[in-house]
Amino acid sequence: MTVHLVGAGPGDPELLTLRAARLLKEAHVVVHDRLVSPEILQLIGPRARVIDVGKTPGLAHSQERINELLVDLAREHDVVVRLKGGDPFVFGRGGEECEALRAAGVAVRVVPGITSALAGPLLAGVPVTHRGLSHGVTIVTGTTMRGVGIDFRALANADITLVVLMGVKRRATLASELQEAGLSPETAVAVIERASTPRQRTVRCRLDELGDTEVSSPAVIMIGAVASLALNDEFDVAMLRGA
Amino acid sequence: MTVHLVGAGPGDPELLTLRAARLLKEAHVVVHDRLVSPEILQLIGPRARVIDVGKTPGLAHSQERINELLVDLAREHDVVVRLKGGDPFVFGRGGEECEALRAAGVAVRVVPGITSALAGPLLAGVPVTHRGLSHGVTIVTGTTMRGVGIDFRALANADITLVVLMGVKRRATLASELQEAGLSPETAVAVIERASTPRQRTVRCRLDELGDTEVSSPAVIMIGAVASLALNDEFDVAMLRGA
Repeated sequence: MTVHLVGAGPGDPELLTLRAARLLKEAHVVVHDRLVSPEILQLIGPRARVIDVGKTPGLAHSQERINELLVDLAREHDVVVRLKGGDPFVFGRGGEECEALRAAGVAVRVVPGITSALAGPLLAGVPVTHRGLSHGVTIVTGTTMRGVGIDFRALANADITLVVLMGVKRRATLASELQEAGLSPETAVAVIERASTPRQRTVRCRLDELGDTEVSSPAVIMIGAVASLALNDEFDVAMLRGA
Repeated sequence: MTVHLVGAGPGDPELLTLRAARLLKEAHVVVHDRLVSPEILQLIGPRARVIDVGKTPGLAHSQERINELLVDLAREHDVVVRLKGGDPFVFGRGGEECEALRAAGVAVRVVPGITSALAGPLLAGVPVTHRGLSHGVTIVTGTTMRGVGIDFRALANADITLVVLMGVKRRATLASELQEAGLSPETAVAVIERASTPRQRTVRCRLDELGDTEVSSPAVIMIGAVASLALNDEFDVAMLRGA
C-alpha cells in the first residue's frame, strides 16, 4: 500500500542509508533500474520479487509504463520499494513517479540517498566548497530531462564549483561555452569515472583541455578551483578496492 | 592512526550511511560538533571516548585547535572518527581539517553524508530538479566561510533551484538581491526548519514575502518554481514523528 522511493547512493553498498538497507530487507517487491549495483541488490530480502525495469521489455525507457507498474504493485503489495541510483529527487525523475503515484491515490514515502554529484568529488579528494576557493556548488546534467542540451554560459561563475552529471558527450561544448562566458581556460577540471566503485578513476585537466581529454561514462565532471585539490585520493581508492 | 571524517547526515539517525554507523561502533574516539543529534551519538560503541568540540572550552569556534586535537588523537588511537553534520565536504570546513591532518602525516578517509541542502527539500516533498521546472540546483550559504555576506545577484537563474543554508538572518537581502537581478517577485520559496527531525516544519511564501516571513534557524531556504510542489509532505512528516 506504500511505495518507498529510495535513493541507492552512488554504488558502494556501504553508502546506502540505514533506512534504505532496512527497507530492502522488508520489501515485498523491489523495482530498480540499471544504475543500481549488484552488491546493493544482494541486500534485498530472499522472498522479495525483484524487477529490473532497465531490462524488462516494454518498461525500459518508458516512464509512463514504469509509473503504471508501480501503481499496480502498490495495490498488490504492502511494501513496494522503488530503488533509484543516487538521490530520488536529484535528477532521476523521482518527482514524476511521485506525482503519478499520488494521482492514483497511492501513498509515497521518499528516502534521500547520496548523490554521485557530491560523493564523486569527495571520493576523489575534492571538497566542492572550500575556504577561499569556492563558496557554493551548482549541479546540472549535460542534457535536460526534456532531452535538450542546456546552455552552460549562464553557469559560468568562478566562485561556485560546477558539477555536471551525464556530461561526457557534451564536454567540448561545456568547456567552450564556459570560456565564452568568461571562465579562465586554466580553470581546473576533475572528471571522476565510475565514482564509488572499485574501478573509480579521476582524470584531471584544464578547462581548455577538457574537449580533447579521453574520459568514459558514467562520469562526474567538476569544474572550478577546488578541482585541483586531492585531499584523500589514494586513501579512498584503496578503501574502495577493499584495502 | 587513521582519522575518518564522517558525514552524519541531516539529523535522523536512519539517514546515516551503513559505513558511518559501522565506524561509530568501531571508533576508539569520536569528535563531534553541536550539529550532530543525540540519537546519532547513541550509536557510538560503549567504550569509545566522545568529545563534543562545540562544548569544550577552548575548542568551540577554533578550527585550528580542533585540527591540533585531531592530530594528537590520531597519534594515540587507531580509529578516530571526526563526525560532522551533513556531508564533510559540503560546507562544514571538512577540506580544511583534511589538509591539516595530511600536513601532519595523518591518514584521512572521508565518508560522504546526506546534506540537509538536498534532504531538507526532499523531506518537505520538493524535488530540487523536476521536468519543465528546474534543470539543476545551486547550493550556497548565507555567509561565506570567510564570514562575508555573499552577493546573491550572480545566483539569480529561473531555471535552476537555489538552496541557501544558514541564510535565515540574511533572507531579506537574499530576496531583494535576487529580485534586483531579475527573478520574479512571485517566485516560489519554501523554508524547511529543522529538516529530518520530528520538529521539521515547512513554511512557504513568495520571494517578495520572504523578508517579512517568520522563520527560525536552523533552516534550509529554497527558491525556484519547484518550491511550490509538495509531493510527500504529510507522509514524511508522519514518518519522522514515528507514525
